[in-house]
Amino acid sequence: MHILIIGAAGMVGRKLTQALVKAGEVGGKPIERLTLADIVAAEAPAFGGAVEALAADLSAPGTAAALIGKRPDLIFHLAAIVSGEAEADFEKGYRINLDGTRYLLEAIRLEGSKAPYQPRLVFTSSIAVFGAPFPEAIGDEFLSTPLTSYGTQKAIGELLLNDYSRRGFVDGVGIRLPTIVVRPGKPNLAASGFFSNILREPLSGKEAVLPVSRDVRHWFASPRAAIGFLLHAATIDTDRLGWRRTVSAPGLSATVGEEIEALRRAAGDKAVALIREEPNETIARIVAGWPRNFDAKRALSLGFRAESSMDEIIRAHIEDELGGRVG
Amino acid sequence: MHILIIGAAGMVGRKLTQALVKAGEVGGKPIERLTLADIVAAEAPAFGGAVEALAADLSAPGTAAALIGKRPDLIFHLAAIVSGEAEADFEKGYRINLDGTRYLLEAIRLEGSKAPYQPRLVFTSSIAVFGAPFPEAIGDEFLSTPLTSYGTQKAIGELLLNDYSRRGFVDGVGIRLPTIVVRPGKPNLAASGFFSNILREPLSGKEAVLPVSRDVRHWFASPRAAIGFLLHAATIDTDRLGWRRTVSAPGLSATVGEEIEALRRAAGDKAVALIREEPNETIARIVAGWPRNFDAKRALSLGFRAESSMDEIIRAHIEDELGGRVG
Repeated sequence: MHILIIGAAGMVGRKLTQALVKAGEVGGKPIERLTLADIVAAEAPAFGGAVEALAADLSAPGTAAALIGKRPDLIFHLAAIVSGEAEADFEKGYRINLDGTRYLLEAIRLEGSKAPYQPRLVFTSSIAVFGAPFPEAIGDEFLSTPLTSYGTQKAIGELLLNDYSRRGFVDGVGIRLPTIVVRPGKPNLAASGFFSNILREPLSGKEAVLPVSRDVRHWFASPRAAIGFLLHAATIDTDRLGWRRTVSAPGLSATVGEEIEALRRAAGDKAVALIREEPNETIARIVAGWPRNFDAKRALSLGFRAESSMDEIIRAHIEDELGGRVG
Repeated sequence: MHILIIGAAGMVGRKLTQALVKAGEVGGKPIERLTLADIVAAEAPAFGGAVEALAADLSAPGTAAALIGKRPDLIFHLAAIVSGEAEADFEKGYRINLDGTRYLLEAIRLEGSKAPYQPRLVFTSSIAVFGAPFPEAIGDEFLSTPLTSYGTQKAIGELLLNDYSRRGFVDGVGIRLPTIVVRPGKPNLAASGFFSNILREPLSGKEAVLPVSRDVRHWFASPRAAIGFLLHAATIDTDRLGWRRTVSAPGLSATVGEEIEALRRAAGDKAVALIREEPNETIARIVAGWPRNFDAKRALSLGFRAESSMDEIIRAHIEDELGGRVG
């Protein structure tokens, strides 16, 4: 089968590519061809089949048609401008996150008008489609009232995915990803970055800044779990979804304090001592508007699986990123 | 003040124009100028102030910018391809209902980037943003999972209206209109047409066809109530809406049987005898997927008002369309 990953150069895209190359198949079908698209070309992995890594801007006219003209059987659409940037640059956010997604869906529809074509499309949505006030745990029937432009664009993407699937143009599955911890790489400026920083940096003997109080609660899954969601979405029986094609992924609801205690169990007091509390009002206010907990019944009943403790999440990081060693 | 009505030639647009001309003011501010836009030019009413009736296609590039360049203070966006047509012609539905709405919002945003500008925008959404399975009564926090392309396009319009309002580009209010009965004019081919036909035609001594059973329940408001919603939305304090800018309008939940009994009270057995039952499986199936009842608490608390009986709805029709006489 031919798989297209749009947004292949990002953290999730790279890990997904690795997982696909390692598995060599999806749902029992061998992967013959991988097309990796992103705004900058991803690194092409060592792979027995055909691999093509392309620099492609999905929001530019013609890009989607060119990618879809090769009729991939399975498409992962991970490309997006992140929350902070979509808020700072209104036009860019709509161009990439809304127009880009729509161009992709339109390219698939038009390709199907030439000869039958209905690929599986896995779309990464976000818990940012939800806006406060929240119930204690957000259920599968909670309404989408995003409070950011990013969340708005993702909510629109979900609606389009439903409609294009209902009309038979595509076989779509959307997943609202939890906040990913432990995010590998360097600390970044995302408002949510500290959730990962306070684990990743001390686990490598480095200092990290905690800008909020320890009782802040949020919704997490590991990068490993996120890749699991995407692979499961690629093969799930979509008849079970009806026309509500996006599901809130399972995850772990935990406080910053629980993160810190799990860090202590994994790497001791010395690691915890590397966390410097530096309260930041702006970040605290942003985080206060975020979901804290979900009741992800539907995803669980569909077979999606996530970690059930922060210890597991930290262990996944130590195994996948640190070669099994702490220090 | 300068008022722009987009979709001014339709039934609601014409009644709204009449109501505005009659009132001469909105929220205490005299109306100095009326711009009436539609795909075909509306009839310009007799009016003391300036009136301009334009043939304008909102989905054509440049149209929205030209309309907004005149900086109207209050905009009613009523233009839409209806449900059946948006389902039959996928591209046209998205072009008018999604692109048209987005062009309008973008034109307002860009006009505001030249000099401060934040007009009130009243947007007509629809109960089609909701899809089965429904609760007994749809509350203000029910999720939008449309089962038509039209409903999808309206749900996206609501999301955009929220985001553009939150960002300060526009001061938006959306209203999900109930099915309008009694719709004046000739019977049309809309699947919902019979709800009006079985009242309007017998009230004028003509036959009407009833394609569904009498226990079918649906959600109604009169044209008079609909105009009341729009005028109220034009002056409401939007701080009370927060960033959930669209409300489900109040209405009347009634069965076809209740419609018929109200017709009997207004015009006797002779009128009821003009209804011919001609069961139609296709229409019955479509109607089965529609909302039956709402709990419109929020709209009521915001001061929106509708009829509380089918008798009132019929009386409004007799007064507004039949000069007070039945026969």
